[in-house]
Amino acid sequence: MFYHVKELQFNARVSGPDPRFASLLLEQFGGANGELAAAMRYFVQAFSARQPYPDKYDMLMDIATEEFSHLEIVGATITMLLNGVNGELKNAAERSDLMRLLKGTEQKEEMIHQAMVNPQFLVLSGGGPTLTDSQGTPWTAAYIEANCDLTVDLRSDIAAESRAKIVYEYLLQFTDDPHVQETLRFLMTREIAHFKMFQAALETIQPNFPPGVLQGDPRYTHTYFNLSNGASARGPWNEGQGTWGEGESWQYIDDPIKHVIETQGEVQQPIQGNQRSMDEVERMDREMSKHRSGEIKEATPTGSNQWSAYPQQTLASPRSAKPS
Amino acid sequence: MFYHVKELQFNARVSGPDPRFASLLLEQFGGANGELAAAMRYFVQAFSARQPYPDKYDMLMDIATEEFSHLEIVGATITMLLNGVNGELKNAAERSDLMRLLKGTEQKEEMIHQAMVNPQFLVLSGGGPTLTDSQGTPWTAAYIEANCDLTVDLRSDIAAESRAKIVYEYLLQFTDDPHVQETLRFLMTREIAHFKMFQAALETIQPNFPPGVLQGDPRYTHTYFNLSNGASARGPWNEGQGTWGEGESWQYIDDPIKHVIETQGEVQQPIQGNQRSMDEVERMDREMSKHRSGEIKEATPTGSNQWSAYPQQTLASPRSAKPS
Amino acid sequence: MFYHVKELQFNARVSGPDPRFASLLLEQFGGANGELAAAMRYFVQAFSARQPYPDKYDMLMDIATEEFSHLEIVGATITMLLNGVNGELKNAAERSDLMRLLKGTEQKEEMIHQAMVNPQFLVLSGGGPTLTDSQGTPWTAAYIEANCDLTVDLRSDIAAESRAKIVYEYLLQFTDDPHVQETLRFLMTREIAHFKMFQAALETIQPNFPPGVLQGDPRYTHTYFNLSNGASARGPWNEGQGTWGEGESWQYIDDPIKHVIETQGEVQQPIQGNQRSMDEVERMDREMSKHRSGEIKEATPTGSNQWSAYPQQTLASPRSAKPS
Amino acid sequence: MFYHVKELQFNARVSGPDPRFASLLLEQFGGANGELAAAMRYFVQAFSARQPYPDKYDMLMDIATEEFSHLEIVGATITMLLNGVNGELKNAAERSDLMRLLKGTEQKEEMIHQAMVNPQFLVLSGGGPTLTDSQGTPWTAAYIEANCDLTVDLRSDIAAESRAKIVYEYLLQFTDDPHVQETLRFLMTREIAHFKMFQAALETIQPNFPPGVLQGDPRYTHTYFNLSNGASARGPWNEGQGTWGEGESWQYIDDPIKHVIETQGEVQQPIQGNQRSMDEVERMDREMSKHRSGEIKEATPTGSNQWSAYPQQTLASPRSAKPS
Amino acid sequence: MFYHVKELQFNARVSGPDPRFASLLLEQFGGANGELAAAMRYFVQAFSARQPYPDKYDMLMDIATEEFSHLEIVGATITMLLNGVNGELKNAAERSDLMRLLKGTEQKEEMIHQAMVNPQFLVLSGGGPTLTDSQGTPWTAAYIEANCDLTVDLRSDIAAESRAKIVYEYLLQFTDDPHVQETLRFLMTREIAHFKMFQAALETIQPNFPPGVLQGDPRYTHTYFNLSNGASARGPWNEGQGTWGEGESWQYIDDPIKHVIETQGEVQQPIQGNQRSMDEVERMDREMSKHRSGEIKEATPTGSNQWSAYPQQTLASPRSAKPS
Amino acid sequence: MFYHVKELQFNARVSGPDPRFASLLLEQFGGANGELAAAMRYFVQAFSARQPYPDKYDMLMDIATEEFSHLEIVGATITMLLNGVNGELKNAAERSDLMRLLKGTEQKEEMIHQAMVNPQFLVLSGGGPTLTDSQGTPWTAAYIEANCDLTVDLRSDIAAESRAKIVYEYLLQFTDDPHVQETLRFLMTREIAHFKMFQAALETIQPNFPPGVLQGDPRYTHTYFNLSNGASARGPWNEGQGTWGEGESWQYIDDPIKHVIETQGEVQQPIQGNQRSMDEVERMDREMSKHRSGEIKEATPTGSNQWSAYPQQTLASPRSAKPS
Repeated sequence: MFYHVKELQFNARVSGPDPRFASLLLEQFGGANGELAAAMRYFVQAFSARQPYPDKYDMLMDIATEEFSHLEIVGATITMLLNGVNGELKNAAERSDLMRLLKGTEQKEEMIHQAMVNPQFLVLSGGGPTLTDSQGTPWTAAYIEANCDLTVDLRSDIAAESRAKIVYEYLLQFTDDPHVQETLRFLMTREIAHFKMFQAALETIQPNFPPGVLQGDPRYTHTYFNLSNGASARGPWNEGQGTWGEGESWQYIDDPIKHVIETQGEVQQPIQGNQRSMDEVERMDREMSKHRSGEIKEATPTGSNQWSAYPQQTLASPRSAKPS
Repeated sequence: MFYHVKELQFNARVSGPDPRFASLLLEQFGGANGELAAAMRYFVQAFSARQPYPDKYDMLMDIATEEFSHLEIVGATITMLLNGVNGELKNAAERSDLMRLLKGTEQKEEMIHQAMVNPQFLVLSGGGPTLTDSQGTPWTAAYIEANCDLTVDLRSDIAAESRAKIVYEYLLQFTDDPHVQETLRFLMTREIAHFKMFQAALETIQPNFPPGVLQGDPRYTHTYFNLSNGASARGPWNEGQGTWGEGESWQYIDDPIKHVIETQGEVQQPIQGNQRSMDEVERMDREMSKHRSGEIKEATPTGSNQWSAYPQQTLASPRSAKPS
Repeated sequence: MFYHVKELQFNARVSGPDPRFASLLLEQFGGANGELAAAMRYFVQAFSARQPYPDKYDMLMDIATEEFSHLEIVGATITMLLNGVNGELKNAAERSDLMRLLKGTEQKEEMIHQAMVNPQFLVLSGGGPTLTDSQGTPWTAAYIEANCDLTVDLRSDIAAESRAKIVYEYLLQFTDDPHVQETLRFLMTREIAHFKMFQAALETIQPNFPPGVLQGDPRYTHTYFNLSNGASARGPWNEGQGTWGEGESWQYIDDPIKHVIETQGEVQQPIQGNQRSMDEVERMDREMSKHRSGEIKEATPTGSNQWSAYPQQTLASPRSAKPS
Repeated sequence: MFYHVKELQFNARVSGPDPRFASLLLEQFGGANGELAAAMRYFVQAFSARQPYPDKYDMLMDIATEEFSHLEIVGATITMLLNGVNGELKNAAERSDLMRLLKGTEQKEEMIHQAMVNPQFLVLSGGGPTLTDSQGTPWTAAYIEANCDLTVDLRSDIAAESRAKIVYEYLLQFTDDPHVQETLRFLMTREIAHFKMFQAALETIQPNFPPGVLQGDPRYTHTYFNLSNGASARGPWNEGQGTWGEGESWQYIDDPIKHVIETQGEVQQPIQGNQRSMDEVERMDREMSKHRSGEIKEATPTGSNQWSAYPQQTLASPRSAKPS
Repeated sequence: MFYHVKELQFNARVSGPDPRFASLLLEQFGGANGELAAAMRYFVQAFSARQPYPDKYDMLMDIATEEFSHLEIVGATITMLLNGVNGELKNAAERSDLMRLLKGTEQKEEMIHQAMVNPQFLVLSGGGPTLTDSQGTPWTAAYIEANCDLTVDLRSDIAAESRAKIVYEYLLQFTDDPHVQETLRFLMTREIAHFKMFQAALETIQPNFPPGVLQGDPRYTHTYFNLSNGASARGPWNEGQGTWGEGESWQYIDDPIKHVIETQGEVQQPIQGNQRSMDEVERMDREMSKHRSGEIKEATPTGSNQWSAYPQQTLASPRSAKPS
Repeated sequence: MFYHVKELQFNARVSGPDPRFASLLLEQFGGANGELAAAMRYFVQAFSARQPYPDKYDMLMDIATEEFSHLEIVGATITMLLNGVNGELKNAAERSDLMRLLKGTEQKEEMIHQAMVNPQFLVLSGGGPTLTDSQGTPWTAAYIEANCDLTVDLRSDIAAESRAKIVYEYLLQFTDDPHVQETLRFLMTREIAHFKMFQAALETIQPNFPPGVLQGDPRYTHTYFNLSNGASARGPWNEGQGTWGEGESWQYIDDPIKHVIETQGEVQQPIQGNQRSMDEVERMDREMSKHRSGEIKEATPTGSNQWSAYPQQTLASPRSAKPS
């Protein structure tokens, strides 16, 4: 259950209206990397963690809840930056003032003129926030990533926090309202904090590479295909050990067209750059399968289920439904 | 700020897995009339009510928060109905069991076979909920209506609650798990309760018809265009007084093609069915404009703003930003 | 079958080009609350009313047809407001004039400069309307609500008309072309007329509350959850009788967290605020089920079907297909 | 203005319910190549033809109106194929029957079991059509093409009719209801008829190649880049005259990588395969520009405009607005 | 397999930054008729041609590959037109300069001011291209047409090239950078070249009309429904032979409402305007079915399959999978 | 420029048709984590790296090109798994066979019966791949992340590879065709290889945390808000050092509601858990700004630009446009 606290998590203030910046700020309200996307990402991921990994569930829900709180801060700021628009629109019998500014000449209501950068502030939302990005594209769940595997989901989350951080960094350069800057700096900083939380949580899961359960085929893990002509950049991503383990190294395929023909479409490619055998991979696949599915099956009731206890005093969910 | 209470608002339970119903139930998770749509609709509408109408803001946020809590209940139920899928998928080295059921022959894992109705449960979400409707279409903010006018928004809300109610009514017919039925009945009932709340709130605003500020042009308000041939239905929507005021009545245009030509495209249409004059309409427009814009301008600071006080002990927001 | 009458329903005129307002006006062409959304909403709803409720079908199709006619008026107005753009673009060998205005200096073709507010007028549609909203988002059927239940659909329609009305009200403030104002005022007024039609039609269906067939669970219908801290607004939406029947009243849950735990997630919540028993609800459910499904089953052939008679001289559809 | 004729353009009949085929048929209701897409394509294109090309406007509107009439036929057929679903759903107090079929065992309501292929028929639309394709994706205006140039738009239309035709051809193979087959065959055939109409209309515009106004650069019109290795197919699309004029021929670039480097990224590419000079191209560009923009500018008022006369007795629109 | 050649197919250059034109140019990067849409259209169509029609496959893949190469040219041009934006944004500690231009006063960084036409260049993509159209709508596969029938697909392609051509023609009028003009002219010209390739390929398939396999019903192929009132345009699209064969002609239904009633919804419509009998149509349907399905079945293995040989020295694919 | 090599990068084979698995496999063709999403992500990111970071550009383009090659492998596999569908559909005069299987009884064409899981294989694409996910949702550029900052983009890429890997892992469990398994295992493994490439590339950029240029505000970086009641999980993500530097630690806010009020909405929050001063942060911001913007400005021409040299023999792009 959620509960709404009337105090914003951060004391959002504005020095005065700025519809133009309100329009840019929509990027973090209803945009791909905005607060709703963040909140929904962790919220949706949390469900499947609830029973097998209640500690990660607790973290995901705490952060999801904080992101909802940030969504509220962003919406509040946009609303305050648009103050005046709705009041003017309600003065519907007096068209003349609004019209004059469309001509771009009037100082006095320059604010509404600026709102014109986002036509929907004027003719659709009436001066309130719209659940879109800064270009007016409605928020879509296509932004949400949730794959029911914490070694994957937590990486999605680290990346998402990185993107949210850079968008705030960009936004910070387009307002000189000190109150708004302060709010943006808080929000930007929290993305950094969440990044570190997800990173630490990922490290508690071992092994966490490769993500998921199955190992890679050792014939194809260490190969770099140089799929372009001319001068080629070499670096730890295609030569030497890179971030591989001791004794492993990248195999650089300089002429992949020739290579693909010679290996009959990679089918005859031998293992190179690492010492893993197919047998070893299969063994590890079996072990990891047993381990991961065991963890989950053990914690997930196959019969009746109940999500929470009343009161819920432990982390673990009840393992079966109590009759009413 | 939001706060997460670990106890679900309703004690969601399931008697056992049912991936097929989980798939149907997505309609209320990420569908057009689902709980996220409801929560976001009221949440987005609330922002512009915050300063001028803090009592309606409080109601909108209470209900939005309840809808988030319902979203959680729906997600929890879907997750429990899918129990087993993720555990099996993690057993990735053992493909054979899963495969056998794709052939439709195995009793034992019929459950995963059923999950096949929603392929993404198997190959994308790994047994967790997806933020889509029951057909796999991602949630979109195109579902959200917020026009910064309570006489409009509250009507959108009454209609939205009606739709959500009927979807639960339909869903109730496709499960015979008594726990799930109980949960659905609670959720369905709450849509009815919210309907009544919005209705009561709308009635406190007077006049609330027509929605918004401007009156209709009396030449065109009472006309029904019979835009089809053959037998025509007559009823209070096109004859007699209908829901109009005393002494008013519908004007039925039986042959609209002829009528449009005769009136030069309605330009020469006289006032019929009501006694309003153009002057009266203009006067009312001016009065309503003054009244509504006055209410809002009075409550909305034109200079600095602060969203909440610390603590926020009154309904009204602070009228100006306090320095840090 | 549809038939196109070359005369517009309203005599749409413009005083001269105004690409900027054309861009705003797209909100009513391809926007969420625009004329296409209205037309398609009633058109889609009409199908399932055809056989069981032919009088409502007639009304829905009359209004749908009027909305298509309005869509045409809006498209015609946008086209006339863009006059000049296509002609200039066809003068493709002469780039210089167009270029000069991009610099913002030329008086003469200021019009095309203004068209720049919607880049697609210039580089995609070549000066014609686009089926998008004022921000360029393509129209989507996500805007359409049709649930095959008139107590729901008509409420969706009342709300939709309210939204369409307010958007015209907002738009009216951004043009001072008297011809365009006249057109907008006609269109805005018709939304009011439709509102009244749908309202009157809804009232002919009794009972129409709750929407659909099933009654609410009396334990949960009258409860208001105060899901936020601090000062709380009280009003007819959460105290007293509100719009409930005689002797009924809201039950206000001041501390819902405590309440949820005490009632074991609402499972042990008694009936409060109303006198309905569970038995009574079940009896009403059965009665309404019998009544509503009876109405529909009676009018809907289970064998062969034919949509219309030739000629169609009654409201009712033929109950079975006539052989060719 | 539109007018609705209660008789369907084609006598749509069904022999009995078939929810599964209803689901497939959605592809022509709310799908990419369906009737709504066709209707809206021609309708939107028609606006910009209204004043300069009133004959093409008349044709586009006639066909658009027919497509709306086809949309109605498809919707009617889907509705009749779903008969029974809504009636059962309204019998909401009796869940047991519906439930039994979900198990797949009951003969009697196999129909609803089949409706399960499209979950939204059951839990969202309640047995009515949804404005989606056969996979549940909502219709989007991204399907609409309108570029304000008849040499382009008519080609888009020919292609669109081709796609609509093949979809009906595919659909015909999945029903053995003779009534439905008859309807589909009518609809399929009309796509062929429209194809021929658009083709004939395109031929009345001369020259119509290249589409638009500007000629191609003669250095790049006749070149085929063989951008793949191995065996290469040769045919009139890359050797000989193809559909070029007398004395012209394709230039085949066998090794485009080498060629691009040698020509400094095509900048030094000489004219080959045709005799056009740059001067000739420029002259034609100027002539066509003058011609096409002349046609349009002449017919398009720069001052006030009125869309239709009352009555509209000629093809041409009034050239200026008549005062009210 | 694809291979990337570092030299662009055309030597894309810019004379200096122009964020405003970069924004317009997005229409050809991520827009409905842009290069990605073209590339993906032919690429997706190519798959089903691979085995039965390897010559058309080769052509489709050559052109798809060229369109990817054009996408790269467009992206490169947009990037160069935005040069400076990213560098300034990275100078994140120095907000002042950026701010000043938002006021519209500074000459020096007018460039970033112009980037404001596309807010996402500033706050989302940081000065790089976005995969959207010029209005910020994300690219969608709703643009893609692929129906597994070359008589349809090639017509879709001809139309698509026509649209792409006109968009470049429009774009050319909004830049006076000679380098950019040169690039656009190359790209525009290539659309003309592709048009001719697809046209020639279509002509090698005989018969190619009607598209697909099935003939039209001769009762409905030659009929024109005059679905509008008033003056009606007549032309080869609704009178005389049009583009029909010798001895065939359009049948003009002047009063379709009457006609539909008289023919009982077209069911009693006789064959007119052509001499085809139903028998003849059925015979042709059988012949074409046999022919087309024969071609495909013959070339498509029913057992194991392998896509390419190593090396692939013929056009045809291997007919069965070779064991590893 | 791209070049197409007729040999697939991997020797894709199938043992026979399997339309059901073809439908699941769409998830990697046109799904959120599929090969097109991967290819376009790196391709779009590459543009802004071209001039300032040509080594990373080379890597991004090599991997993007490989992903296009994988898209081709997936499409080829889907096509081969659907073999037979198109051939049957072309046999359009013979409906009976197809019909019989819809009844679910015929052994012989069970294959087409299976194709029914994706209706569009039958009635839209005619047996070819559709550019959708496994639920029929069209691919959208909303999946693409490109923020013009390598410390962000490379993290997005690592996460994206993780998601793609897990989807292949899930898919592997739903086919027992050894050829298809082999192909999937290759593709899954390459995601692991790319993961390591991006990871190694990210490590060459120092510092790479926090992503972007600006440091976090030290008052808010180390704080964990315990935004839920009941039992709370503690771990390195909210206690102790976590992945912070020496001497730093998480600050756990046990009662955030109280805390927010006490700190006046975090405004009065002191620095805790780390020793950074505001001055230090500002200094680092200035340094990083100077460094990063310097790198980019230095490499990015402010005047004329040329993307590639002919031939392009170095990694760096030409710094200015050479005249034609």
